[in-house]
Amino acid sequence: MNFCSDNTTGVAPAILAALAAANEGRAMPYGEDAATRRFEAKMRELFETDLAAFAVMTGSAANALALACLAPPYGAIYCHAGAHINEDECGGPEFQSGGAKLVGLTGEHGKLDPRTLSEAFKHAGKGDVHRVQPAVVSITQASEAGTVYARQEIAAIAAVAHEAGCALHMDGARFANALVHLGCSPAEATWKAGVDALSFGATKNGALAAEAVILFDRTRAAEFAFRRKRSGHLLSKMRFVSAQLEAYVTDGLWLALARHANRCAAELADGLAAIPGVELRHKVEANEVFVTLPEPALVGLESAGFRFYRWHQGPAGTVRLVAGFDTRPEHVREFVDTARRFCREASRTT
Amino acid sequence: MNFCSDNTTGVAPAILAALAAANEGRAMPYGEDAATRRFEAKMRELFETDLAAFAVMTGSAANALALACLAPPYGAIYCHAGAHINEDECGGPEFQSGGAKLVGLTGEHGKLDPRTLSEAFKHAGKGDVHRVQPAVVSITQASEAGTVYARQEIAAIAAVAHEAGCALHMDGARFANALVHLGCSPAEATWKAGVDALSFGATKNGALAAEAVILFDRTRAAEFAFRRKRSGHLLSKMRFVSAQLEAYVTDGLWLALARHANRCAAELADGLAAIPGVELRHKVEANEVFVTLPEPALVGLESAGFRFYRWHQGPAGTVRLVAGFDTRPEHVREFVDTARRFCREASRTT
Amino acid sequence: MNFCSDNTTGVAPAILAALAAANEGRAMPYGEDAATRRFEAKMRELFETDLAAFAVMTGSAANALALACLAPPYGAIYCHAGAHINEDECGGPEFQSGGAKLVGLTGEHGKLDPRTLSEAFKHAGKGDVHRVQPAVVSITQASEAGTVYARQEIAAIAAVAHEAGCALHMDGARFANALVHLGCSPAEATWKAGVDALSFGATKNGALAAEAVILFDRTRAAEFAFRRKRSGHLLSKMRFVSAQLEAYVTDGLWLALARHANRCAAELADGLAAIPGVELRHKVEANEVFVTLPEPALVGLESAGFRFYRWHQGPAGTVRLVAGFDTRPEHVREFVDTARRFCREASRTT
Amino acid sequence: MNFCSDNTTGVAPAILAALAAANEGRAMPYGEDAATRRFEAKMRELFETDLAAFAVMTGSAANALALACLAPPYGAIYCHAGAHINEDECGGPEFQSGGAKLVGLTGEHGKLDPRTLSEAFKHAGKGDVHRVQPAVVSITQASEAGTVYARQEIAAIAAVAHEAGCALHMDGARFANALVHLGCSPAEATWKAGVDALSFGATKNGALAAEAVILFDRTRAAEFAFRRKRSGHLLSKMRFVSAQLEAYVTDGLWLALARHANRCAAELADGLAAIPGVELRHKVEANEVFVTLPEPALVGLESAGFRFYRWHQGPAGTVRLVAGFDTRPEHVREFVDTARRFCREASRTT
Repeated sequence: MNFCSDNTTGVAPAILAALAAANEGRAMPYGEDAATRRFEAKMRELFETDLAAFAVMTGSAANALALACLAPPYGAIYCHAGAHINEDECGGPEFQSGGAKLVGLTGEHGKLDPRTLSEAFKHAGKGDVHRVQPAVVSITQASEAGTVYARQEIAAIAAVAHEAGCALHMDGARFANALVHLGCSPAEATWKAGVDALSFGATKNGALAAEAVILFDRTRAAEFAFRRKRSGHLLSKMRFVSAQLEAYVTDGLWLALARHANRCAAELADGLAAIPGVELRHKVEANEVFVTLPEPALVGLESAGFRFYRWHQGPAGTVRLVAGFDTRPEHVREFVDTARRFCREASRTT
Repeated sequence: MNFCSDNTTGVAPAILAALAAANEGRAMPYGEDAATRRFEAKMRELFETDLAAFAVMTGSAANALALACLAPPYGAIYCHAGAHINEDECGGPEFQSGGAKLVGLTGEHGKLDPRTLSEAFKHAGKGDVHRVQPAVVSITQASEAGTVYARQEIAAIAAVAHEAGCALHMDGARFANALVHLGCSPAEATWKAGVDALSFGATKNGALAAEAVILFDRTRAAEFAFRRKRSGHLLSKMRFVSAQLEAYVTDGLWLALARHANRCAAELADGLAAIPGVELRHKVEANEVFVTLPEPALVGLESAGFRFYRWHQGPAGTVRLVAGFDTRPEHVREFVDTARRFCREASRTT
Repeated sequence: MNFCSDNTTGVAPAILAALAAANEGRAMPYGEDAATRRFEAKMRELFETDLAAFAVMTGSAANALALACLAPPYGAIYCHAGAHINEDECGGPEFQSGGAKLVGLTGEHGKLDPRTLSEAFKHAGKGDVHRVQPAVVSITQASEAGTVYARQEIAAIAAVAHEAGCALHMDGARFANALVHLGCSPAEATWKAGVDALSFGATKNGALAAEAVILFDRTRAAEFAFRRKRSGHLLSKMRFVSAQLEAYVTDGLWLALARHANRCAAELADGLAAIPGVELRHKVEANEVFVTLPEPALVGLESAGFRFYRWHQGPAGTVRLVAGFDTRPEHVREFVDTARRFCREASRTT
Repeated sequence: MNFCSDNTTGVAPAILAALAAANEGRAMPYGEDAATRRFEAKMRELFETDLAAFAVMTGSAANALALACLAPPYGAIYCHAGAHINEDECGGPEFQSGGAKLVGLTGEHGKLDPRTLSEAFKHAGKGDVHRVQPAVVSITQASEAGTVYARQEIAAIAAVAHEAGCALHMDGARFANALVHLGCSPAEATWKAGVDALSFGATKNGALAAEAVILFDRTRAAEFAFRRKRSGHLLSKMRFVSAQLEAYVTDGLWLALARHANRCAAELADGLAAIPGVELRHKVEANEVFVTLPEPALVGLESAGFRFYRWHQGPAGTVRLVAGFDTRPEHVREFVDTARRFCREASRTT
């Protein structure tokens, strides 16, 4: 009954089976294999465009390598102050880029606001040798607050970014969860809305360790290949990463897995919101629920065996609950029931 | 019938099974799981000492991160000129260390000579602010030439390195193959001979993607953890790397796999060496055979479906043949027979 | 009549004379000369303690090299959001440190508040591998707002910094101006208040190009020497930088120069503040005046030949006026008179 | 009587006078001044072409910044193994470039041989993701052995470099000395022979601290400006560097100074070569003399007050003698006489 994070999940059965299947015989190393060719073709098909696709094994690598290809060492990367790249990767983008600067902007519900961005650019000192130079805007889809950028919101940010000469990067660690919410095509949610580079996450949603960097603008593809190798992210037995990604997008598996997780999160949110004294912090649009409960209810849930993270933002009693592709509906119901019970008791005793 | 490299192999069945077994239920991410604890304990047991062990997924990452912990940005890393870290990682050590310099030294049969090293240190300018400062010596075990450093050879190099204030790093991408040849304990082959840090390879010898960095000197362990995360090499679902490494060293699997590969290489070498006109370039002590054949024989072998790399060093007709944990003995015999046949024909026509 | 910045000034006569005097005969290069020995001794005498002193030619180099010695690549450097190191050095500290992260904090009147700092540390994730690690606190003395940290304020920040395991760095590009205001000894204003490293500026206050990095904690001195050379900041004819610094602190020249500049700034401030419609933005404690004037007055001043920078912070009409060691008192009076005249006219026409 | 290095010299009187003259009044900082405009124009005039010129204060900065603009972090910089950039800048190019790799090649008399270079490129693995990518060739003019590349030699290296897709950089720390030897125009010695970027040294030949980076290919100029600032090499009082460079090339001062130094070196060489038992190691084409003397003669010269460096290359008794713009002819004669006397005595006693 672990609601800590979707990265506590294991591997979806179809993906594990694909790994086993990929183990037939020998294959040439470093991506010179058939599985990698198929993964690349799948990506082009999925996004309905020519593109360069590179597989790596962590989201941190995907983000930092993509950003390093888009920003010079004296560049600035604009993002939400709470973005994973800014807060949770131990300076990974700074490292891979050779010291680019992340500029964290505030924004409601985990989302970057195009007006805030536009305002920031006004003071960015474009062309001023004393200032780091605007190079990339990075947004997280779904956001760190579990909200999802609408296509028009992406397009509005893309317009501001491109106007400033910046590329638009999307950290799609939970891209599948966002796409299920949007209900549009992968192309519509990305390059058609102005996204230049996408970190296409699979690990949180059922892969063992597999993320793809999608460069819709192929001009940086050669550079990416060298940066990936140089940073130790080119696997010799690459077929086993490619096979995960191939299986992930085959027959809509990725969307089915995300749909399940989103549904569990929605049920959690609906159930909890109906409890007096419980307050949702953000709209639940993907697979994450940020919610404030009375402290005794949290203690009760913990003692009942539920695991989740106390959140560092929001009022006391705020927690994050994440549903995964494998979350069991009965655990969701049990969580809500337990929360309701402890909240009721808590309200009685006060 | 692929003799290109041991990284064209797949995953050993026991390791694939361990991956499937690790997929039971949820586990805390980023190494806070039981499999990682077990892997760490196994490493301490295997090397009979306290140590810090970190799992990553590529040998390039293992090497470069270990070196970055041992060398300052203004440091020099001494190695054989043909070392993988110097030639085949696209500048990975330079990148992870923030620009340290690799000093490539010549040495017979892929091995660093302590006298050459000692001579190099004399001109290294220790303390001279204009010169990069000697920080690490790195040796490859088994070497890039398929030869193996004897324990006394390691100790001699360690003595010179330590005398110069350098740490000794061992790139053990094929450590198992070397150990099988040495017939001593892992401890005797490493820290007891003066090794301070080891890249303990498993990928080439049966893992999907798993390498361990072993720091016998724990003082750099905290730094390693931050560097691993920062460079994108800390996996969220770490249990799946740890599980590979655990299975790899359980019940001597790693040594059994390496023993098989070494034996295949020895048979290849013995069979080929007996053919007139064929010449071995180095002693075959691990799982690699460097051998010169007449060109028509190479063409014949290729047309018979054998794959191998033409080697950039040595006289024309030099190739590298690598045996893997899964190499079939009948393929070895077939290779030798085919080579013999084509050599005979070649000698007739000349 | 240039009030743009103190870096538009030339060289104080005594310092120019010292350069000429240093030109006698040959001297050994790279700091192995007598002038450099004398400069180092002067610094120890001035600060009444043993210390390591290194001369460089720019404040950006002084700051970034000092910070690089204090922060690991995965470190965080806490400073005021508007600090020069954060805003005006094109990512210099990030570059020299190998990608450390600057964390900009807000603070009234250009000064870091120990409570804000303390609060920031609570959320810094010390020991958490996903987060950059608190390593340095950097304050600017005098601040970017022309204010000066009192000794107790420095001590309070030092206490919070040290408690968090951070070193305290002081960017003293205008240290002389601050010290004149404080009226205490250099030692009292620095290491006795908890400062670990100081960028001791001379360029803005009369040198041609000379800054000293003072490490009160000598443990990083060797590292500094290598980093200085490596980054191209070790001059071959070092005697000419050392000679500037020697002359700068001889017979109290530095304080006399700064006293003059401060006095001019104070007169500017007093004169302007007395004009109706004019508003000072910060207390004037060093040689900088931040002031808001009616737009017509600014236009009038500009057309009268006065030069100054429109400031990006504060309400419309905010400008920065900087007095230098060579500012002529009659220019100050003329500025105030001209401003008064245009302000009066402006108020009439509205 | 210091023959250690030309960097033990002081400042040529005309350049010191230019510094004093530049001290008139205020000037806008960071190169936005008239002296800098004039310096840039002078460079265009001198080299008879459009170009981008940037002033810095050390040769190490000039070299490393130029190379960082020409090589990506995964690039390789080919140079003579004994080149200053490879041996004497504490890894400066590696640092500024973000970890590019220097590939040192052997070559007679300090010069790179186009055939050796061509051979190296054959094994460079262009396009191979595992290998650092050939990006720059750097030659030193005059070389570290005091020899000078003829124009055809430069053109031959440029052809090989460009064929491999590399830019050609020239480290011209002693460019004036080389040019005097060549007797051609600056344009003929550089871009007309295929040089893409030049470190134009002035410090060793009479400036206080001034070097110019000349980019004949302007496409990297914007990048250079940001890298210069970021690395702390943009001076606020830039006029004082620009004024040095302006004076340096005005009325042929630089060539006159270099001509004197070269002449002194030639006299030293001729005088010494005529002494039995003394052997020149390289042709003396610029201002450096590499020569082997009997040990007693060296001891005698030292005790007579002459200073010079014992050289780490060549047979025992090899020293380097460097003449500067200010070397006194009577010191040269005295050196030769003293050497002759001690050599004669030495030969008698043996």
